[in-house]
Amino acid sequence: MAPNEIRKLISSAQITGPTAGMAKGYTQANLAILKKEYAFDFLLFCQRNPKSCPLVDVTEVGSYNPSTIANGADIRTDIPKYRIYKDGVFTEEVTDIKDYWEDDMVAFLIGCSFTFETPLIEAGIPIRHIEENCNVPMYKTNIECAKAGVFEGPTVVSMRPMSQADAIRAIQITSRFPGMHGAPIHIGDPSIIGINDIHKPDFGDAVTIKEGEIHVFWACGVTPQAPQAVAMQSKPSIMITHAPGCMFISDLKDEKLSVL
Amino acid sequence: MAPNEIRKLISSAQITGPTAGMAKGYTQANLAILKKEYAFDFLLFCQRNPKSCPLVDVTEVGSYNPSTIANGADIRTDIPKYRIYKDGVFTEEVTDIKDYWEDDMVAFLIGCSFTFETPLIEAGIPIRHIEENCNVPMYKTNIECAKAGVFEGPTVVSMRPMSQADAIRAIQITSRFPGMHGAPIHIGDPSIIGINDIHKPDFGDAVTIKEGEIHVFWACGVTPQAPQAVAMQSKPSIMITHAPGCMFISDLKDEKLSVL
Repeated sequence: MAPNEIRKLISSAQITGPTAGMAKGYTQANLAILKKEYAFDFLLFCQRNPKSCPLVDVTEVGSYNPSTIANGADIRTDIPKYRIYKDGVFTEEVTDIKDYWEDDMVAFLIGCSFTFETPLIEAGIPIRHIEENCNVPMYKTNIECAKAGVFEGPTVVSMRPMSQADAIRAIQITSRFPGMHGAPIHIGDPSIIGINDIHKPDFGDAVTIKEGEIHVFWACGVTPQAPQAVAMQSKPSIMITHAPGCMFISDLKDEKLSVL
Repeated sequence: MAPNEIRKLISSAQITGPTAGMAKGYTQANLAILKKEYAFDFLLFCQRNPKSCPLVDVTEVGSYNPSTIANGADIRTDIPKYRIYKDGVFTEEVTDIKDYWEDDMVAFLIGCSFTFETPLIEAGIPIRHIEENCNVPMYKTNIECAKAGVFEGPTVVSMRPMSQADAIRAIQITSRFPGMHGAPIHIGDPSIIGINDIHKPDFGDAVTIKEGEIHVFWACGVTPQAPQAVAMQSKPSIMITHAPGCMFISDLKDEKLSVL
């Protein structure tokens, strides 16, 4: 099915769950909605931290149409499940946010690693969490994001274990996507970036790590909106995000984001 | 001389002219200063038009220190010459802007093509305007920028004529710098992008085009601040830019901006 057909099923609540594997080859995005008073600082935060916050679209103030990546879409209804945070505290999960939308809101669509996983798989690199049919493991690190206005906090990374040879190839392949997390930010010993137990991710699921495999860490789009992380620390009066795994499916082809 | 030493000479008005060729290997940047009321729209404009507006730094509201790329620098004094525009009209040229600075101003530093010219030259590709010791020729095109709030207008391109073989190599090399204009946006017939007379650039100087050479066009950092172009069309009450050729010299190494 084409992205706009899937979005129609989502907006009519016929799809209310995770979007992994849907509309293969099309970019899926994380969502963060904030009021205008926070929008400049948040946009600046993304600009200063492009590896963890690769923006694929930002709406005009008050607009719920991410026109650059999905003309005609409605960000208030086209995501299967949303989370509402008030003063930095999670209050509820809903399937549309029409009742929460305000005229001065701005929607930020932030890329996710689904985009570079497709070319990794096509290059024959096994992706463990896909093999094990679970979420990618994610960890808070000791790598501080570059601060912008009220927004600050630690970089969150996703981790994929692989052979050394695959790690080299994965660095090459993801370097072609500088606008979608780009090359890894760390390989090897997790403790160097402040991860004490690789088997206990802060978000997502633990995966099997085989003898001799190397840990490869990419900056993660969850960074700005993870609970107890960047945006929540600044306690905006209201913030809306997608629910975990329930992403926005755009009309943008992943391959358009490759620079080489 | 190191970038900070040159900036000291500039801030004490011992250097008041163009910065081309200074601090080789270090990134130079275009400047645009706007008041906060325009800052979100302008930042969004840059985010939506990354090839013409590659941001290398944006200051916090009210801060004149571009701390990401030049800690301790003062954007009000460290550029040889500035231009003041009021309501979209050029009013004067000054060597420092301390008298114009306001508490709600934001400074945008936008990359320039000096960054990718160095690796082109190192690859043995002759750069005509450097050979002829003049400014790169720049042209307004019929390629509309993606609009953002009040900001809209045509993309400005810079043009470098070269052999077909060099053009292929130049595409490869500049693709390594997606954060600094990246690959060309057009090669060949200028009329396709709305340029009627390649010998009459809108900005900069005309250069010799030899028999059999191909025109190679890159999106240009002048796009947002060119007279009668994007920012000026929206007539902000005050806007401050660098004077042509008088760029901000940062501490950032050009090679740091390469993704491969």
